[in-house]
Amino acid sequence: MSQAFEFHLKKSVSPGGPRLGEMRTVHGVVQTPIFMPVGTQGTVKAMAPEELQGLGAGIILSNIYHLYLRPGAEVVAALGGLHKFMNWPGGILTDSGGYQIFSLASFRQITEEGVHFRSHLDGSSHFLTPEKVIALQRTIGSDIMVCLDECPGYPAPEAEVRRAAALTLRWAKRCLEARAQDPAPLFAVVQGGMLPELRREQAQAFRELDFDGYCLGGLSVGEDKDTLLAMVEVTTPELPEGKPRYLMGVGTPEDLVEGVARGVDMFDCVLPTRNGRNGMAFTGFGKVVVKNAVYARDPAPLEEGCGCYTCRHYSRAYLRHLYLSREILAYRLLTLHNLYYYLHLMAEIREAVAAGRFAQFRREFYEKREGGNTRG
Amino acid sequence: MSQAFEFHLKKSVSPGGPRLGEMRTVHGVVQTPIFMPVGTQGTVKAMAPEELQGLGAGIILSNIYHLYLRPGAEVVAALGGLHKFMNWPGGILTDSGGYQIFSLASFRQITEEGVHFRSHLDGSSHFLTPEKVIALQRTIGSDIMVCLDECPGYPAPEAEVRRAAALTLRWAKRCLEARAQDPAPLFAVVQGGMLPELRREQAQAFRELDFDGYCLGGLSVGEDKDTLLAMVEVTTPELPEGKPRYLMGVGTPEDLVEGVARGVDMFDCVLPTRNGRNGMAFTGFGKVVVKNAVYARDPAPLEEGCGCYTCRHYSRAYLRHLYLSREILAYRLLTLHNLYYYLHLMAEIREAVAAGRFAQFRREFYEKREGGNTRG
Repeated sequence: MSQAFEFHLKKSVSPGGPRLGEMRTVHGVVQTPIFMPVGTQGTVKAMAPEELQGLGAGIILSNIYHLYLRPGAEVVAALGGLHKFMNWPGGILTDSGGYQIFSLASFRQITEEGVHFRSHLDGSSHFLTPEKVIALQRTIGSDIMVCLDECPGYPAPEAEVRRAAALTLRWAKRCLEARAQDPAPLFAVVQGGMLPELRREQAQAFRELDFDGYCLGGLSVGEDKDTLLAMVEVTTPELPEGKPRYLMGVGTPEDLVEGVARGVDMFDCVLPTRNGRNGMAFTGFGKVVVKNAVYARDPAPLEEGCGCYTCRHYSRAYLRHLYLSREILAYRLLTLHNLYYYLHLMAEIREAVAAGRFAQFRREFYEKREGGNTRG
Repeated sequence: MSQAFEFHLKKSVSPGGPRLGEMRTVHGVVQTPIFMPVGTQGTVKAMAPEELQGLGAGIILSNIYHLYLRPGAEVVAALGGLHKFMNWPGGILTDSGGYQIFSLASFRQITEEGVHFRSHLDGSSHFLTPEKVIALQRTIGSDIMVCLDECPGYPAPEAEVRRAAALTLRWAKRCLEARAQDPAPLFAVVQGGMLPELRREQAQAFRELDFDGYCLGGLSVGEDKDTLLAMVEVTTPELPEGKPRYLMGVGTPEDLVEGVARGVDMFDCVLPTRNGRNGMAFTGFGKVVVKNAVYARDPAPLEEGCGCYTCRHYSRAYLRHLYLSREILAYRLLTLHNLYYYLHLMAEIREAVAAGRFAQFRREFYEKREGGNTRG
């Protein structure tokens, strides 16, 4: 366990049920359950740091695979570390790149020692080991490091899933040793494909090791929602109560609600930022696709009553015009709204859990969405 | 002359020399000489209105050709006018689209009555007249309207240039009549190609007409710098002292200094915004092309001592990384810096004119640039 990290479980209704916590890194305190905006390449796409702070984002996700390839971890370090480089005073969790190596790299070869791969940017050859991934994350000044994992494809043969899970566990132990001298906060990644028994076994094996938190990896890779949630459901009760659980790369607003219902404390996902850049806004009533002709003269904001900057100042008609004109301001305003929606949703979830009315919140959340978009 | 517009000439060194003025529209007071950021499609590219205000921009340029085609002037009007549509509380000058019809439209045919053209967006056919262009600008709530003009190509046969200039004058008279009932502020466009005598004649003809200001049009269309400045030089002394002169679509920092030296009060240009999006920053020492490898580990800001948000918080190394990663924040930060540079340059020019040391300022401006980029 690291001195630079604290997690205090403030409330837990039942094992594997909704929880409230407080997480401290050297870059501030955040309340959980929390959503982390994605800043893969050292910037949350289309946003400035002050805008993220204004939205109440306390911690963001970055990615050592991307930063290692460009601009290079040693460049980030030479510029004073990632926080200074990108002018971000809050927390930064860095994913190990396990998922990116398996989803982006044009070639990869796994050995016990590590992973050989070719860069998706320029085809250059690289070799990363658990130890090197820890060193890289330390170099750039990550607040929460993540172990190198092997993320199997989906669907994948059972033997392959079992082999990857076992390797991920052995690599995690090496990561733990690698950070031992100077214990910076480190999360493990629990794999196990879509095999409930394997997920449970892995969680049990990982809980014996002294990590600061546990990621649920290898999910939201193509499986259906029921399977995703079933995998979460079998995993969280096996993890230590006093450590945060982070469901990687998930998901939709519904996924956040269902993840919290199953004991998840942390989420990240590209949906609010990526969909914003693709002209789609999240609202409590469902999605708004701004390019739709129905909004051509619509003076309403994206969502009535929304307190975000975009909704306080701009109409759907204007956003549609900007989006059709491919103006950068469209991507900015939609990203801002979507991140506000996600972060505000998490704040509402925390309030509901604190007040002991999460079940009611969850029911109303779905009722509102089933009511559909107020303006068609 | 319009009640909704005032121009007070505060200082004039000599006819055709540097001037200081104060210009009032119903959306505020600005000091001249001034630079107007370009917001062609109802947004200054990559910027939010609050950022423009933070930069001290008091008036921006928009364009009725673009807004007429998309989203349509009646849509803008239905949404409460351009200021409300785009959430901009400052002044808006709308170009008539004369230049755009001649530079963007895929087909055009001029008649005495007006201009037939096809939209560059979808090929649809349109017919605009001087009267219609005034009505459109009135519809969207322009603070300063501009007469429809014919902008000849460059180079163009002398007869063609003379015909276009004469037509522009007749159209301007029709614009003046069209706005007579409800006199909104209206600027004329003085044409005349690269023919000094014609430019002078046109200016003399226009000065007899009761416009609120005078645009110098058809310049920066491919001619060399000496020709551009010679055309300005023969025009400004012929224009009424008490009315603002606006050099359309010009230009580089050097052009702004030389324009002021020749009695110009207003400028607009896409350079600070467009070049920002193309990775080029303006500084007092010259241009910084951020993608250059020399900046890969450069912790310095774009310009030492610059007070803009970008330079206060970000290194050249980070901007290079963002630009190479095609991150939207790169376009935002570079645009912001460049607009700051342009607006700050105009403020320095005004101070120098006020203090009677414009000649000295101009000399130092060039000396600094000749010194070159501090960091190679």
